[in-house]
Amino acid sequence: MLTLDKVYHAGFVLKEVVRPTDLIRSTTLCPDCDLYLKTENLQVTGSFKVRGAYYKISQLTEEEKAKGVIACSAGNHAQGVALAAAKNGIKSLICIPDNAPISKVEATKSYGAEVCLVKGTYDDAYARALELVEERNMTFIHPFDDEMVIAGQGTIGLEILDQLPDVEAVAVPIGGGGLASGVAFAVKSLRPDIKVYGVQAAGAPSMLNAVRDKKIETLDSVKTIADGIAVKTPGEHTYDYCSKYIDDIVTVTDDEVATAILELIEKQKMIAEGAGAVGVAAAIFGKLPVKGKKTVCVVSGGNIDVTILSRVIDRGLQKAGRLAELVVQLVDKPGQLLDVSRIIAETGGNVISVNHARTDVNLDINSCVLRVSVETRDQRHLDEIIDRLGKSGYKVVSNI
Amino acid sequence: MLTLDKVYHAGFVLKEVVRPTDLIRSTTLCPDCDLYLKTENLQVTGSFKVRGAYYKISQLTEEEKAKGVIACSAGNHAQGVALAAAKNGIKSLICIPDNAPISKVEATKSYGAEVCLVKGTYDDAYARALELVEERNMTFIHPFDDEMVIAGQGTIGLEILDQLPDVEAVAVPIGGGGLASGVAFAVKSLRPDIKVYGVQAAGAPSMLNAVRDKKIETLDSVKTIADGIAVKTPGEHTYDYCSKYIDDIVTVTDDEVATAILELIEKQKMIAEGAGAVGVAAAIFGKLPVKGKKTVCVVSGGNIDVTILSRVIDRGLQKAGRLAELVVQLVDKPGQLLDVSRIIAETGGNVISVNHARTDVNLDINSCVLRVSVETRDQRHLDEIIDRLGKSGYKVVSNI
Repeated sequence: MLTLDKVYHAGFVLKEVVRPTDLIRSTTLCPDCDLYLKTENLQVTGSFKVRGAYYKISQLTEEEKAKGVIACSAGNHAQGVALAAAKNGIKSLICIPDNAPISKVEATKSYGAEVCLVKGTYDDAYARALELVEERNMTFIHPFDDEMVIAGQGTIGLEILDQLPDVEAVAVPIGGGGLASGVAFAVKSLRPDIKVYGVQAAGAPSMLNAVRDKKIETLDSVKTIADGIAVKTPGEHTYDYCSKYIDDIVTVTDDEVATAILELIEKQKMIAEGAGAVGVAAAIFGKLPVKGKKTVCVVSGGNIDVTILSRVIDRGLQKAGRLAELVVQLVDKPGQLLDVSRIIAETGGNVISVNHARTDVNLDINSCVLRVSVETRDQRHLDEIIDRLGKSGYKVVSNI
Repeated sequence: MLTLDKVYHAGFVLKEVVRPTDLIRSTTLCPDCDLYLKTENLQVTGSFKVRGAYYKISQLTEEEKAKGVIACSAGNHAQGVALAAAKNGIKSLICIPDNAPISKVEATKSYGAEVCLVKGTYDDAYARALELVEERNMTFIHPFDDEMVIAGQGTIGLEILDQLPDVEAVAVPIGGGGLASGVAFAVKSLRPDIKVYGVQAAGAPSMLNAVRDKKIETLDSVKTIADGIAVKTPGEHTYDYCSKYIDDIVTVTDDEVATAILELIEKQKMIAEGAGAVGVAAAIFGKLPVKGKKTVCVVSGGNIDVTILSRVIDRGLQKAGRLAELVVQLVDKPGQLLDVSRIIAETGGNVISVNHARTDVNLDINSCVLRVSVETRDQRHLDEIIDRLGKSGYKVVSNI
């Protein structure tokens, strides 16, 4: 049974390794509410996961500690367990599916863990981890469905109440439900008047379904850029706590999450991963009934692969009319490339790349296509460039 | 004359509007030193500039306040003055050169300033600002060469001493020198044993030259991605303070700054602008004599245009072998595009774009060029793809 004194105890134990992350007010992100960000993306290891992992490991018996711990994760839990084990002076073995980004594997190793790369998916890695638990008699650290882990995550709730005593609503991402359970339990136990909302990815609404249908089900598949909360089956403990303590669960789309990531970069100068940005996405896009309320969004982590980050930024720029690929149909004769380049330069567009191709089967045999990537100030500027090209006789499509 | 009590007074006054930004330890950025980041990129307005501007404006007479203030800036100072004026309840007029990014103009307006877009460069905007000072009898708020402004920036030094009493070295970016003067003055006045280093962009070493030559000179031109510290002429006050209180000034290149920006994103989950990242760049690349020392880098701001950010990320990925444009020479006959695509897919590369062009004048008349943008796991993976293509008879160049 989770009790408030366990959460307080976790808070005491965690002082050794965890940063009491800053609560940062944002005056610009959310037009309708008074928004605060609990910046667990700035936590050591780049996510809140180290809290639960460290508390869980610290409470193992000496015998269990001597044998070490095993976890399975391609993400934040891997790094959390690795660091937590190292700080407790014990061995850790992390099973990671072999398609995980190299950067995550390297980060996990850098905290001192032994990494076991398993061919296949997360499920394969999980199965291998359970085998290894048997073989080596090590303790398995569950990523969310464990009351010690939940107590560790709950310390975020205590910190929020401490940092903003007049908070009125808290929004927490939900994947397996460990973070949400801990935060909701801590907040509601002390202050039942504060609303606690869970936010899931629209492509992975497992806890939403479970709470709605009053039973745990498993999704056939999950699809979201918020990979940290792409969980098919909620935990048993976490299902109980979320059912009892969460006021409502809402979902956000991938495009909403991408916009939230870009807004956090531009307005708050910080990196959130997809799972970390869902709360902010829900606030920005009016999914939460928090109008005029002091609202804390838990930005749970910042471990986003930079190749994905780069794509999120480009997509955001494209949607704002600040980056476009113009597809210009030309008759294949000399001088047109120069002419198009000149027109774009005159209107102040910044050409990034130009490609001239004749391999498109949809074209007339004597046509060809010029693809011009161009940076513009805004949508109006982009429209102006397209208009100028059109008036000079070029057929242009903006390829967004 | 700058005095310590003015800096303390500034600290007292600034409590109303400024965040005492977190000092975040980084265990992974700097291999040789014990690095802490003073996160002024997370300051309101996204930079430290609001400190000096707010303190300066708060100390104006009632008569001066009634007439309002003018500033000239394309960047952080604009937003700092705009917010500081609004918080003091007075008018502000900001001259901005009309080639400034729309995002900066919009941000300045959003804080309540009147914006005067001036055709031309910063110098043109500055000239217009001085005209407006005469015309409207408003007070000009200098971005750095003003002792009240310097006192405001000096509060960062007080906070550092408070947050990390056993700090041994502090690295501060230098553009005009306001931040460096304030921080160095505060730190050295209280703790002369602590080393204070200035960091400039290699393409804009105006203060370095001045201190070395013992006189203020003006650079013919400046060229750096750290636009916030691209200053041709140091201030008179700031020259004096930097000469007296800074232990040494070092420079960093644009590539070093870009790497620091990417490292701050990947390892610390935060956005720094070029000027904000120079201290970290100096620490990472061993420019500072801080081996084994507790070192604070002031990350002065995070207002980087996302189009530039996107390029910095791509460049960082390219340098790490994680993103490449392969230029494949083909004989212009059917099937080759398919063949190349197949080979890349088989080696696990992720193709982002393919372009097939015949417009390159350096080619044989029956050759053509295929440009393939591909995401790879690391340099070894990229080399493997190039090798496989080579063995299949394609001539490939990685275009980085």
